[in-house]
Amino acid sequence: MIRSEIKALAAYHVQDSSGLIKLDAMENPYPLPDALRTALGKHLADVAINRYPDADMLALRTRIAERDGVKPEQVLIGNGSDEIIQMLLLAADAGECVMPTPTFVMYDLISRWLKRPVAPVPLNADFSLDANKFLQVCAREKASIAFLACPNNPTGNMWPEETIRQIAESFRGLLVIDEAYMPFAERNHTNLIGRNVLVLRTFSKFGWAGLRLGYLLGDAQLIAHLNKVRLPYNINSLTQAAAEFLLDHTAVFEKQAADIRTERERVTAALAAIDPKKVEVFPSQANFVLIRVREAGKVFDAVKAKGVLIKNLHSTNGLLANCLRLTIGTPDENNACLAALKEALA
Amino acid sequence: MIRSEIKALAAYHVQDSSGLIKLDAMENPYPLPDALRTALGKHLADVAINRYPDADMLALRTRIAERDGVKPEQVLIGNGSDEIIQMLLLAADAGECVMPTPTFVMYDLISRWLKRPVAPVPLNADFSLDANKFLQVCAREKASIAFLACPNNPTGNMWPEETIRQIAESFRGLLVIDEAYMPFAERNHTNLIGRNVLVLRTFSKFGWAGLRLGYLLGDAQLIAHLNKVRLPYNINSLTQAAAEFLLDHTAVFEKQAADIRTERERVTAALAAIDPKKVEVFPSQANFVLIRVREAGKVFDAVKAKGVLIKNLHSTNGLLANCLRLTIGTPDENNACLAALKEALA
Repeated sequence: MIRSEIKALAAYHVQDSSGLIKLDAMENPYPLPDALRTALGKHLADVAINRYPDADMLALRTRIAERDGVKPEQVLIGNGSDEIIQMLLLAADAGECVMPTPTFVMYDLISRWLKRPVAPVPLNADFSLDANKFLQVCAREKASIAFLACPNNPTGNMWPEETIRQIAESFRGLLVIDEAYMPFAERNHTNLIGRNVLVLRTFSKFGWAGLRLGYLLGDAQLIAHLNKVRLPYNINSLTQAAAEFLLDHTAVFEKQAADIRTERERVTAALAAIDPKKVEVFPSQANFVLIRVREAGKVFDAVKAKGVLIKNLHSTNGLLANCLRLTIGTPDENNACLAALKEALA
Repeated sequence: MIRSEIKALAAYHVQDSSGLIKLDAMENPYPLPDALRTALGKHLADVAINRYPDADMLALRTRIAERDGVKPEQVLIGNGSDEIIQMLLLAADAGECVMPTPTFVMYDLISRWLKRPVAPVPLNADFSLDANKFLQVCAREKASIAFLACPNNPTGNMWPEETIRQIAESFRGLLVIDEAYMPFAERNHTNLIGRNVLVLRTFSKFGWAGLRLGYLLGDAQLIAHLNKVRLPYNINSLTQAAAEFLLDHTAVFEKQAADIRTERERVTAALAAIDPKKVEVFPSQANFVLIRVREAGKVFDAVKAKGVLIKNLHSTNGLLANCLRLTIGTPDENNACLAALKEALA
């Protein structure tokens, strides 16, 4: 009764983090300040939960549009970026879905759910992206959609602007530039939004992971078509109300993002100061740092035994052999992580 | 770049209800009692929105399972029933999707999104369902999935138990019994849950439409497979926390559902007391009543002009010619609706 390809899949697995310092999931480590929490609770107490959510979300789309410098009709809101990736893959014309690899796993996973063929383009060993190679695969496979995570997850690097621009100018299908980590990056790609180029963003890494609020920016006509495959009440009333409230307080989160960037540089420097034969550190423009060690499994276990949960990517992709991903937490959490790592590498 | 079938669709349209008594969307008309609203707000203020939601939701699944008399591993939670319908249609084997018609529109719409062929089985003129005809279509079309809304929307009737049982016993694909309106119905179908029979429920009509919380009950192995096409963080943290809080206060909503059932009977009787040549009333086990008038468009407009928004189904299906659907509201709202209708029909 169930498709064999679905039966063959494993369910998405989330690591158990109970009792551990959680540096595995690119979350903002800072809870809401108390005054803001209380005010948010009062605001949410006024939500009419007996009514369906606002299906159109013009108010919220307008707020997001103003913030990001586009028009409200250029904004599509999703239950996290995940749901928007699903909408894109549902609506896009037949044809391959092209993506660099390794990258964010949901592009590939949701493509499989939707029986969409995937053409992965391996990154170079240093995680750089060859635009010519990428475009050759797109042409050969008659690709109708491509995803570029900028910065890329799980590698953390940002490909050069000319690489992205070259692909944007030559690719004829839907090009989705996923800027999930924009709060921590040097640049964004709003300027590339056009006939077939879309930018995907989320508030998850900004500190609102629990709300599930992602959005897509693009050409208004394209957004209108994509909106046809949106489940009408996809964003619940509490999330809408919370987002409208929190958008009045973004300075708090901008400051946290700045602190996280500062910490990322400190953690990167501390890791680089360890014996380079024992650990290789990759440059990051995200809120995590990728490292390569000699035996990732052993180091992961040792760090976990010290109470810090990170992410072991060793078996996920050949290019990620012995790689670990460390989310940037608070200074104390990062110190605990660094201490545990140093001990494990000693 | 966008599939032509998607381009050809119209976006889901929600009627503008500003300033009107809203009897168009099967919402529970009762806001949360003040004490409960305040307590809920305080509870939500404690949610760690910087963290991703609980992806597994064992606590919430356990609460739902206990309430509905199944095991936690038999529960799949979705962002409204809509998302679960999408998961079912994503995961089900190739084959037609069979449904009575008219019925809930999302079965057909999401099937189209997913390029799934649909075989509608027209109801009889009195909205009864011929089980033999339904099973013949299932067999002829090699159906892999079928939906039965019990009670049915937008007709409001509940097909006899033997009709549902006959289909459940003979159909070999996934049979989804959608009990969205269970709080207002005489019976449910928990007892039919089995190898291929699933029951779909939601808290929307119970008074929590704004939360978007639907769930599917079924065989544990089947649920495990369906869980593989669930977006991992599909239920945000605020909804999870709100549901866990409100599940401690279900007596409030049970009482509201009882009041709505009483009002439904009163509204049905009041409509039946009008000249039967001017209005036909159909029996309902849901929180709405379907009526047929001579000129639905005119009556709809006249009722709206009096400040009451109902639903005009005239152009949606041949069997619904000149039909209007009235959601049951508070006694005052129902009185306003009845008065407007009587005036329009005079």
